Amino acid sequence: MQTLHHVGYVVKSIEEQAAGFVKSLGATWDQQITHDPLQGAKVTFLRTPGAGDAQIELVEPAGDGSPVSRFLEKGGGLHHLCYEVGDLEEHLKLIRAAGCVVVRAPMPAAAFQQRLIAWAWTREKLLLEFLEAVKI
Amino acid sequence: MQTLHHVGYVVKSIEEQAAGFVKSLGATWDQQITHDPLQGAKVTFLRTPGAGDAQIELVEPAGDGSPVSRFLEKGGGLHHLCYEVGDLEEHLKLIRAAGCVVVRAPMPAAAFQQRLIAWAWTREKLLLEFLEAVKI
Repeated sequence: MQTLHHVGYVVKSIEEQAAGFVKSLGATWDQQITHDPLQGAKVTFLRTPGAGDAQIELVEPAGDGSPVSRFLEKGGGLHHLCYEVGDLEEHLKLIRAAGCVVVRAPMPAAAFQQRLIAWAWTREKLLLEFLEAVKI
Repeated sequence: MQTLHHVGYVVKSIEEQAAGFVKSLGATWDQQITHDPLQGAKVTFLRTPGAGDAQIELVEPAGDGSPVSRFLEKGGGLHHLCYEVGDLEEHLKLIRAAGCVVVRAPMPAAAFQQRLIAWAWTREKLLLEFLEAVKI
């Protein structure tokens, strides 16, 4: 099981910029901004109208040494793809075998009700986030 | 009607790099590479397993002065989001009203059986492609 959950986009200020995205994407936004100290970021999610569409995640650096600060200094923008996967540890084994480098081991994420996320780089320099699906 | 159709990712060489994406994303790939001289690019599409998932489009510059050459020189990577829309001209009116700048007016696209595409920048510097849906 693997589904495109969201596309991450780094901005300077969610508060100042989210409304513009809502307008240009025709998106809906619940205005909920989550600060995750473990990720050094504030995040919020925009939903676009297509059924089953991946969400757009706006990511704003929070705190010194945020992992996205340097990306923002270079201009920000499209940053990562997040896939929801069944068993996270199993999936990380698969992607390591595919040549990816796991750069952040699984940890609970404030934005996803403490579900586990992990981060990896592909050999082609695509940054991937993996979100463990809700266990049924 | 508006659906996330694909996420565009700029690479140096589709032939050399597509297999890596297939592995790390667990994607399927029909190995069809389309050269579109109007876009100055070669493109190919990867499908990820989730039902209704947006595709990943790999984009390789083709020819002198390709619009993606400069982006590739800066490192390439995640480049644009493409939404499929009902009536393209109508949609462009909407996004202009939302403050976007249409940078390439509608033109037929080789990768989409000559369906019309157009390009726009949002104020927040997100590059959007719009693909006109098949008319029924």
